Amino acid sequence: MATWKNLDTLASYSKLAELKGHVDIADAMAGEKGAERVKKYSTPMAAGLAYNYAAKQIDETVLDALAKLADEAELIEKFQELYNGAVINTGEKRMVLHHLARKQQGDAVVVDGVDKREFYVAQQKKAADFANKVHAGEITNENGEKFTSVVQIGIGGSDLGPRALYIALENWAKANNTFKMEAKFISNVDPDDAAAVLASVDLAHSLFIVVSKSGTTLETLTNEAFVKNALVKAGLNPSKHMLAVTSETSPLAKSEDYLTAIFMDDYIGGRYSSVSGVGGAILSLAFGPEVFAQILEGAAAEDTLATNKNILENPDMLDALIGVYERNVQGYPATAVLPYSQALSRFPAHLQQCDMESNGKSVNRFGEPVDYVTGPVIFGEPGTNGQHSFYQLLHQGTDIVPLQFIGFKKSQLGVDVDIENSTSQQKLCANVAAQIVAFACGKKDENLNKDFKGGRPSSIIIGEELTPAALGALLAHFENKIMFQGFLWNLNSFDQEGVQLGKVLAKRVLAHDTDGALKVYSDLLDI
Amino acid sequence: MATWKNLDTLASYSKLAELKGHVDIADAMAGEKGAERVKKYSTPMAAGLAYNYAAKQIDETVLDALAKLADEAELIEKFQELYNGAVINTGEKRMVLHHLARKQQGDAVVVDGVDKREFYVAQQKKAADFANKVHAGEITNENGEKFTSVVQIGIGGSDLGPRALYIALENWAKANNTFKMEAKFISNVDPDDAAAVLASVDLAHSLFIVVSKSGTTLETLTNEAFVKNALVKAGLNPSKHMLAVTSETSPLAKSEDYLTAIFMDDYIGGRYSSVSGVGGAILSLAFGPEVFAQILEGAAAEDTLATNKNILENPDMLDALIGVYERNVQGYPATAVLPYSQALSRFPAHLQQCDMESNGKSVNRFGEPVDYVTGPVIFGEPGTNGQHSFYQLLHQGTDIVPLQFIGFKKSQLGVDVDIENSTSQQKLCANVAAQIVAFACGKKDENLNKDFKGGRPSSIIIGEELTPAALGALLAHFENKIMFQGFLWNLNSFDQEGVQLGKVLAKRVLAHDTDGALKVYSDLLDI
Repeated sequence: MATWKNLDTLASYSKLAELKGHVDIADAMAGEKGAERVKKYSTPMAAGLAYNYAAKQIDETVLDALAKLADEAELIEKFQELYNGAVINTGEKRMVLHHLARKQQGDAVVVDGVDKREFYVAQQKKAADFANKVHAGEITNENGEKFTSVVQIGIGGSDLGPRALYIALENWAKANNTFKMEAKFISNVDPDDAAAVLASVDLAHSLFIVVSKSGTTLETLTNEAFVKNALVKAGLNPSKHMLAVTSETSPLAKSEDYLTAIFMDDYIGGRYSSVSGVGGAILSLAFGPEVFAQILEGAAAEDTLATNKNILENPDMLDALIGVYERNVQGYPATAVLPYSQALSRFPAHLQQCDMESNGKSVNRFGEPVDYVTGPVIFGEPGTNGQHSFYQLLHQGTDIVPLQFIGFKKSQLGVDVDIENSTSQQKLCANVAAQIVAFACGKKDENLNKDFKGGRPSSIIIGEELTPAALGALLAHFENKIMFQGFLWNLNSFDQEGVQLGKVLAKRVLAHDTDGALKVYSDLLDI
Repeated sequence: MATWKNLDTLASYSKLAELKGHVDIADAMAGEKGAERVKKYSTPMAAGLAYNYAAKQIDETVLDALAKLADEAELIEKFQELYNGAVINTGEKRMVLHHLARKQQGDAVVVDGVDKREFYVAQQKKAADFANKVHAGEITNENGEKFTSVVQIGIGGSDLGPRALYIALENWAKANNTFKMEAKFISNVDPDDAAAVLASVDLAHSLFIVVSKSGTTLETLTNEAFVKNALVKAGLNPSKHMLAVTSETSPLAKSEDYLTAIFMDDYIGGRYSSVSGVGGAILSLAFGPEVFAQILEGAAAEDTLATNKNILENPDMLDALIGVYERNVQGYPATAVLPYSQALSRFPAHLQQCDMESNGKSVNRFGEPVDYVTGPVIFGEPGTNGQHSFYQLLHQGTDIVPLQFIGFKKSQLGVDVDIENSTSQQKLCANVAAQIVAFACGKKDENLNKDFKGGRPSSIIIGEELTPAALGALLAHFENKIMFQGFLWNLNSFDQEGVQLGKVLAKRVLAHDTDGALKVYSDLLDI
């Protein structure tokens, strides 16, 4: 059994903390030794990706200290306990099994006589069978016509991950002839969200997936009612257009209001649920079950890499360790995720949830306050767009923001133009290469307004093309990074008690059970 | 003439710095005195909006110190100099005239014999006339058919602002019968961006607006060539489908490749250009020139408020001052913008550029290093979505992140459902009210995992409905806030030298003129 200790009680962390400002990357990345670094500090990920960390503030001394920290914090042992079914979510007293939805990494995990791997596979099969029948025209609308679009009704983890993955693969699927039907998403309780989405689809040929583990999420039930109203007004029978993704014990589970119900359980949290039915139903419908299976395979392969004790062969753990060095030793408060791929336009928003909801905490897994900073602010937009926007601050602002670039050699659609002797894809890649070096090395100028100090760390994940498997590997990489960072900070990364108080107070407002400031705000907002 | 001094040389700033941690908002916002605060600490904005700052860490003492800082920093005098045509952009030696595109706030500004107000109005009229002719079917495609959609080709300021404004008003225009044609945007040099947008429009009935002040922006020219290729392949004549928004001296200005050219000048920077032809052409085409005029009127009215010397009657200056208190005295590194309106889904991305590109700088307006932190990281997503995502960190993370909420009493489309005795719009508003109080007051719990410390500051802008005028007022509010913060930090908020180095290095990569690390990255990315 691994021992769970606060970061600042580890001897190896004290050693690491002595290495503040140890590496000057402006110097280390210059000239031929810089070239050697870029060749050396790279490690393979799954699905042909590679994690290159040459432009991070590391050298052999820092890496050695990080390796000792990984050992002392027993990161691999903790991951093993997690995938073997230990109760890692101490707040809610639950196991954490999203890895098991991808692959059996370790021991069989049996709950109440049910093998959980078999349960997840069965739900995937249920989603696949349903999707295949829709595609084959065996499940149709009441007039026997094929469904042509699917709308997910969910919020938070039931929205951001599946939406990011759908957007990431929409063009790939079109280019590879696996595009089956358009997907849309309704999440916000703002009625303009649902109304606008409904106005944009052909109701008579649309399926709606209601996603709520408990079956009680207020936003989702409200939007479900909104959709049902619209279906009824259009003379359609909602029960012939809706399916549910929910827990077996929820009110939605056995209801005749749905064509089918695909089940989730308590062991895969919302923000990790893209690989469960939450992502599986909609992605199987949109792109076919085979594409969803490839996402899972890419994720499983990355998970397997994450079991490696050698930090140089474990990109997820290494990324996590470098991030803790940047956050706790170097003192950087935010991290930007910058994919040079328009397809990943909503991937930063998903990571923002995954990271900030998992590790934005001030008490450790035992409920005791910690004396160090934990999860950073995460934000990002696709390059090259961001270059013409907030990169000014990243290059010349007073705070240093570590950067996580992502780039692919090939575009998804393969349509391109050659302007001034290069394609758009080459221009895209040239920009990300240039940015890494610009941030690291800077450039002296006597006019300080045009001077770039450099010394701004970044890493890059490079892939051949954003395929389903590469996307799965990317997803797993960041999930595992966040998990290892939670281990290092000694947090429970798998609950989210911080979202509860707002819910409770909102209910009081709606019940007109308020006083003081809350009552005045309610009045100002005409509630 | 105002005197430009660094923030840390001002006596009033030293006084303000003594007020670190002065107000405990968890206490101040509790009970009846909290109710009184919410009523008291509110100031009107233009277009019926109000800026409520009750949940900020202020009291009469802090406000008094902020008023003295405003006076000593001569914020109003500097704003006056700006709109009267002083060379405020010291780096590029340019005037800063985006306010003049909305209204003549002060003296006439004449450059080379041209009255700049007349120039901006003339360009607005040109865009309006063009849009009216398109809507009337007087400007058509080669077959005499009406155009039904318009695509903007631009990046950074030529993309984010116009896109955010278009999304903000699309539903409003539909509900108010002023929706004329669908707009889309191509920005990223990633070829998948242009290819996907082109696949989603009817080329034969589409107009394309090429937006580049210099006429040399590589991304934009590349995407223009991409679009021209597609038009030619479809048997269409590009010159019958394209217009330009550019400077009078650019290669695009007098070219026969365009139906018309609407002119910009050097005095409105990209990130402030939504109110110029950059936003004017596409918004006039999409919604009609009257709607664009209403945006300008809302902005102009907010600008007029921003000339008020009394900080309690100048919401833009007050917001700026509180932000500097939070950033420099309280030490908070980031700020979140959280609109409870799906229509504002891309407004945070626009503000992210506007703020981080303006004030993400380490040297003052004279090119000397400053010894204090400047612009924070800006990020945000619409509520209630964010509540189910990154709010965990905002409530219980180790860093405090000041919050800027925005909420409206009414939805734009007016389509709603009543579930559990409240509409979706009421639920939306209940949530934002609840969040403010939850962040400020927190809630004690013996289980520290469920404990909320509170003390997390926020403000809220409340409006009746997100109309064009309200949107213009919002835009101007944040632009003016950023301007006043630039004055306080003694920065030049109107250049962006930090984006240059990346451009230079990217060109070297494309010319295969690299060595060292840059060459290895280029090889890894197959350039």
